[in-house]
Amino acid sequence: MTFKTSQRNELPIAITMGDPAGISTEISALSWRETRKERRSTFFVLSRASLFEKYNSSTSQKIAFEIIQSPEEAFAVFPRALPILELPKQVVAIPGQPDPANGEMIIKSISIAVDLVQSKQVSSLVTTPINKHVLYQAGFEFPGHTEYLAKLAMQGNEPASRPVMMLVSSQLRTVPLTIHVPLADVPKMITKQIIEETAHIISADMKKYFGLSSPHIAVAGLNPHAGESGSMGKTEIEIIEPAICELKTQGLNISGPHPADTLFHAKARKNYDVVLGMYHDQALIPIKTLGFDEGVNTTLGLPFVRTSPDHGTAYDIAGKGLANPQSLMEAIKLAQSMSANLQGAR
Amino acid sequence: MTFKTSQRNELPIAITMGDPAGISTEISALSWRETRKERRSTFFVLSRASLFEKYNSSTSQKIAFEIIQSPEEAFAVFPRALPILELPKQVVAIPGQPDPANGEMIIKSISIAVDLVQSKQVSSLVTTPINKHVLYQAGFEFPGHTEYLAKLAMQGNEPASRPVMMLVSSQLRTVPLTIHVPLADVPKMITKQIIEETAHIISADMKKYFGLSSPHIAVAGLNPHAGESGSMGKTEIEIIEPAICELKTQGLNISGPHPADTLFHAKARKNYDVVLGMYHDQALIPIKTLGFDEGVNTTLGLPFVRTSPDHGTAYDIAGKGLANPQSLMEAIKLAQSMSANLQGAR
Repeated sequence: MTFKTSQRNELPIAITMGDPAGISTEISALSWRETRKERRSTFFVLSRASLFEKYNSSTSQKIAFEIIQSPEEAFAVFPRALPILELPKQVVAIPGQPDPANGEMIIKSISIAVDLVQSKQVSSLVTTPINKHVLYQAGFEFPGHTEYLAKLAMQGNEPASRPVMMLVSSQLRTVPLTIHVPLADVPKMITKQIIEETAHIISADMKKYFGLSSPHIAVAGLNPHAGESGSMGKTEIEIIEPAICELKTQGLNISGPHPADTLFHAKARKNYDVVLGMYHDQALIPIKTLGFDEGVNTTLGLPFVRTSPDHGTAYDIAGKGLANPQSLMEAIKLAQSMSANLQGAR
Repeated sequence: MTFKTSQRNELPIAITMGDPAGISTEISALSWRETRKERRSTFFVLSRASLFEKYNSSTSQKIAFEIIQSPEEAFAVFPRALPILELPKQVVAIPGQPDPANGEMIIKSISIAVDLVQSKQVSSLVTTPINKHVLYQAGFEFPGHTEYLAKLAMQGNEPASRPVMMLVSSQLRTVPLTIHVPLADVPKMITKQIIEETAHIISADMKKYFGLSSPHIAVAGLNPHAGESGSMGKTEIEIIEPAICELKTQGLNISGPHPADTLFHAKARKNYDVVLGMYHDQALIPIKTLGFDEGVNTTLGLPFVRTSPDHGTAYDIAGKGLANPQSLMEAIKLAQSMSANLQGAR
């Protein structure tokens, strides 16, 4: 899909439809309602107008929306209405009732967003929640958004590196080295190579997208007290320490392994820019404990900026006027800031 | 060691010497200085006057101290001076330089405190940090304070159950099911029996010491998203869920397994009284992230009240006037409150 190239320096942000049976339509509508006056970011949704008609018919927090024909039109429309770049096929959704029939357009929304960011028609993409189990029934073959984006990125001109999930809030940034695997599998998945690869991606992308000249990565230990000199596990001595040593000689600003329990309090957080944790809960517990609704997910290691709210489809509250747009608004804000830093760095 | 039995309803709190090369003397002195005016708790230290003489010679925050002959005398002395019940042998210590020669008196301080609490001469004990590696050189045979206390408790009249470590702050209480073991060993240590035993100890002791008629225990899952219906690990389905089910039929107020990452934010914390986590960092990260200096450790499952500050000997800052007494003060406050609830319940 190609559109007339923007003449502006600034580009709009593309927001994907997400699963239309979840809260994506509501939080997109509310994010526009809440932020349009600030004019800090201009965004549009890759969705269907009918979903927003249905949203308006069910709420007192109605919004104006308008179909646009190209991303650039979003700038003119945004002050008066949420711009919608329509997907090619109709989408019919009942809140809380996921329907595999919508799988094709859910996926299409993501692939169009990637096309647009790769062809420099949008600055970045913000993905809203999908449910992989619903998409599997529609023939989707990826464990999640991130892997699908990595695949799409490989078809572009720039080579894709490995996608790395980073969680961002106003108080903390963390990266889990391993993610959606049983805890019992974590110790054997930790290798010197994966730590080194991940740290290089974090360091490079934090320079590019966060305006940091020498981002400090604090690496957490795997075991209690980071193994306490080997008395509670050897992974620190045998793998994590040698990896950090190597990375230091390669010029990275990196420290650790630090005991994870004392790494996240207010005073400790002043000493680093990001924590590389060894597993899902080690990286996610502190960020969600400090601020549940403001956590945002971003994927480093891709050739473009992608963020997403840090929650799921929330079928249980869909269509009930209970959805909180804060995480999506934070995701939009982060996408804007990462794109601006990238532009500044160029 | 026996003293005249107190005629008061209230009993003082015994604070152990801890490692005299660490910060124990400083934080005990400062805790008296900070809290004596409040008169909320009366405590004394099981230590040596010479250590406090030395403390006074090195600081501008000097304190008055006085040797007492029995715990009861603490009440008369406390308003004017820190009461010291002297250990039988001299202790000479250089800050930051642990000395195995002091091992005997470090251990003696703990065993006398247990004698006093078992013979109802003190309400509770607050232990200050020791270093097990120093004590090993003095013939100490236990992995830590807790195990030594459990051993001493068994020599008393009441049968000791299994000691269970609980972390307490104003915002959160957590219990790690497994503690100082490599993370790789955790999955195989989780059994239905250990979950059930631990939950019963937590429930019984929270009724006794925390004034809760039906304490709600929230159990965390082991794996990311609590295993997500078995797709990221089976421990939840095979072990944790059946244990919770069994405990519910036995009348416990218990729920879970909950995904650990979303269990600790402000809104979630309103739904339970304590979290039973599966391993060290899962239980300790949230509590230390929320408030590093106010965390307190208490041992449930003992026939008496024991609390301790949630930090170590801090040799690196010992004697430098940098030690923060807040965690010890919180430990004293908690010991006081647990003893008061116990007395109220009797």
